[in-house]
Amino acid sequence: MELTHTNQQKDINEPHGPVNPAAFLTGDAENSDRYPAGRCVDFPVSVVLPAGGSGERTGLQTPKQFCSFLGRPLISYTIQAFERVSWIQSIVVVVAKENMELMMDIVRRFQHSRVRVVSGGSTRHRSICNGVLALGEEDSAAARRPKVVIIHDAVRPFVEEDFLYEIAVAAKDQGAAGAIRPLVSTVIATTSEGYLDHSLERARYRASEMPQGFTYDVIYQAYQRCTESDLEFGTECLHLALQYCGTNAKLIEGPPTLWKVTYRRDLAAAESIIKESLSQTACLITGGRAPAAALADALQKALDMEVIVTPDLCGENTRHLLKEWNFIQLSSNYSSLSEVEAIIESLEAANRALLHPLVIVLVCLSSADEPSVSGEVEGPSAIMALASTAKLQNILLYGIQLHQTEDTQSWERSRLRVAEIASALIRERSPALVGQLLQA
Amino acid sequence: MELTHTNQQKDINEPHGPVNPAAFLTGDAENSDRYPAGRCVDFPVSVVLPAGGSGERTGLQTPKQFCSFLGRPLISYTIQAFERVSWIQSIVVVVAKENMELMMDIVRRFQHSRVRVVSGGSTRHRSICNGVLALGEEDSAAARRPKVVIIHDAVRPFVEEDFLYEIAVAAKDQGAAGAIRPLVSTVIATTSEGYLDHSLERARYRASEMPQGFTYDVIYQAYQRCTESDLEFGTECLHLALQYCGTNAKLIEGPPTLWKVTYRRDLAAAESIIKESLSQTACLITGGRAPAAALADALQKALDMEVIVTPDLCGENTRHLLKEWNFIQLSSNYSSLSEVEAIIESLEAANRALLHPLVIVLVCLSSADEPSVSGEVEGPSAIMALASTAKLQNILLYGIQLHQTEDTQSWERSRLRVAEIASALIRERSPALVGQLLQA
Repeated sequence: MELTHTNQQKDINEPHGPVNPAAFLTGDAENSDRYPAGRCVDFPVSVVLPAGGSGERTGLQTPKQFCSFLGRPLISYTIQAFERVSWIQSIVVVVAKENMELMMDIVRRFQHSRVRVVSGGSTRHRSICNGVLALGEEDSAAARRPKVVIIHDAVRPFVEEDFLYEIAVAAKDQGAAGAIRPLVSTVIATTSEGYLDHSLERARYRASEMPQGFTYDVIYQAYQRCTESDLEFGTECLHLALQYCGTNAKLIEGPPTLWKVTYRRDLAAAESIIKESLSQTACLITGGRAPAAALADALQKALDMEVIVTPDLCGENTRHLLKEWNFIQLSSNYSSLSEVEAIIESLEAANRALLHPLVIVLVCLSSADEPSVSGEVEGPSAIMALASTAKLQNILLYGIQLHQTEDTQSWERSRLRVAEIASALIRERSPALVGQLLQA
Repeated sequence: MELTHTNQQKDINEPHGPVNPAAFLTGDAENSDRYPAGRCVDFPVSVVLPAGGSGERTGLQTPKQFCSFLGRPLISYTIQAFERVSWIQSIVVVVAKENMELMMDIVRRFQHSRVRVVSGGSTRHRSICNGVLALGEEDSAAARRPKVVIIHDAVRPFVEEDFLYEIAVAAKDQGAAGAIRPLVSTVIATTSEGYLDHSLERARYRASEMPQGFTYDVIYQAYQRCTESDLEFGTECLHLALQYCGTNAKLIEGPPTLWKVTYRRDLAAAESIIKESLSQTACLITGGRAPAAALADALQKALDMEVIVTPDLCGENTRHLLKEWNFIQLSSNYSSLSEVEAIIESLEAANRALLHPLVIVLVCLSSADEPSVSGEVEGPSAIMALASTAKLQNILLYGIQLHQTEDTQSWERSRLRVAEIASALIRERSPALVGQLLQA
């Protein structure tokens, strides 16, 4: 097993979430800018997203495409992965009849804009076929009949623009293209009695993954010409293109980010990747106060993420409100509660917590010479009250109290603890702990 | 892809951690008792665990078998999975020369007792071969030369006794046996130019997984007879047994728990499974006080885990110290800090936190009519101090403060918040938050 072994060792270093977490999380298409002109797609591309599995049919309570991660169903993450690509004109999501309402509700709730929901067939191929036919009906100002159709899985949310580009271009040139990955296990043939017959020579074979791309004509013809048996038992769109249109698909090795949420353990992995993506950067707000600026400096070094320091979020600095997911407000004795309130209001107004929960950590710096007993009591309950309201808007507010001291060593230790606690709060995003005032 | 689709939908409901988390976590063999006499293995079985990948060779900082989960390397979890099986007499771990010291240190630190560490060869097959030869040298009171050798991966920590039993018995009867799983993706053959050649008929093929079992004679002969090229490039032990000993391995479909920590995302999944296993039960200690008993009753209903209620951990109740991983001590105004100290001492004495971090949550119930200001100040810092010491012993102590009130509704709400916060603390086991006194 040396070959796989080596592959896997290599893979473990590769990203399994998006290569560019910021791009993954951006709801709109602004990141397409980074493509040089030559990489622009100048033909219409649309997407079919089969999401047909119904809980009832399989005995599952919730089909995995509808399982929630930080309050949002997996299918919405996958839709977002396509919505952020400027050159994708429309996305047809195909769901089982009994999930039509649920799916429409998801589209409305998370304000997906380039999505049509279509009712599926009784098998995966019938569902994809329905999606392709729905695309054929399109011919409006918003969407032309596509030149290329990308077919993807609802449960592969981490697909990235670069790879979609490769698939789209290869599909246009060759008629069909598909993602492949190295085999993780040796594949063996079994005898009918359950014994080893032979093992395959691994170098010749690959796992067929998603996305796949087809010119509209190839995928349309393939579904027109294939048999009922294909529609019922078929396993592979690339196979239909080969058998019924004579199109040998171009195979392109995809990144590990293409992985499919298949098993229960994958739900945990997906959640972890999403949380990691959300914990890459923080915006540290000093309020322009001198002691806060010194603390900010120390935190910037100690926090294991990219930290932007700003005196406030006014004027030009409002741009941080539109970019960051984590805010750390530094304050003396709860003096900045009103500033936190203002941040929450701005984030709400900008609808920033629609797709992901945002975190605000209020760090309260109390100096030893002003031990205001009333502050000690009112501050915590004010934070708790504000946090309860913010939580309803998907904004998670936590507090950390830090006592200023003359002792350099213990002051150093406290600052490191602020960084440690803030990192844990940002990383975990636990709704159960909002409003708590933790001691550094 | 209907077939896989169905398989996967089925799998998502199946456990991916151990079916019996308690058995997974028990370090010793006591759980073998649950086997009826007929399922006892009455022939010597030993294990070879190749763990040869070295960081240097692959450019990885830490090979995944040495990555830590809650403070313990993955390989130790896998060793534990075998150590808990009474009928496995010895485990040979094969590591790269440069990791010998590291591995010996892991064995010492986590007190693994049936393990020998052997130096590996330059490829996986050479390493396994070294392990088999090392087993052949065994002939002492502690370990006879095994009748059956089980070969497993260091990075599949969730394998369970039932399945090992099936493999061992089939290996003894048939000469060789191996775990298989359904294919997750369609397997396709590629042309040399990177185009689709054909896709395999999926029903005939399976993924070959681990563990595999062989009679000592079969695996020994296979390695004696095979070629240098097999040792260098070979991919499959079952194949060697077939080619060089004419032994067709019996193939047994394994549970999804056999999965292999392969990609970076799998590290998150493994950690999540381990945390879940540790969060199945809690022991609630009332101190025999009446208000605590009423609160215990409410918590028992609200907590999403199995809860055992006990007045104390003395006398017969000390048994809970040996079984549980989570303790919730109910207390009035920090009156139970000494009891918590006693729990920590007992857990340390019993070496209970050797393999997993233990959690203690101290719930402080303060009544409105005794607002002791000194308690409010001293209590929190006493908890923090105690938590700092306990953390050094892998015991995580957290506090939750609950204010008793006459208002039934807000009292009910507070109790639910205790349950919610305690669940989050137990589940996350965050070292950054120990010693905090959270408000319910």
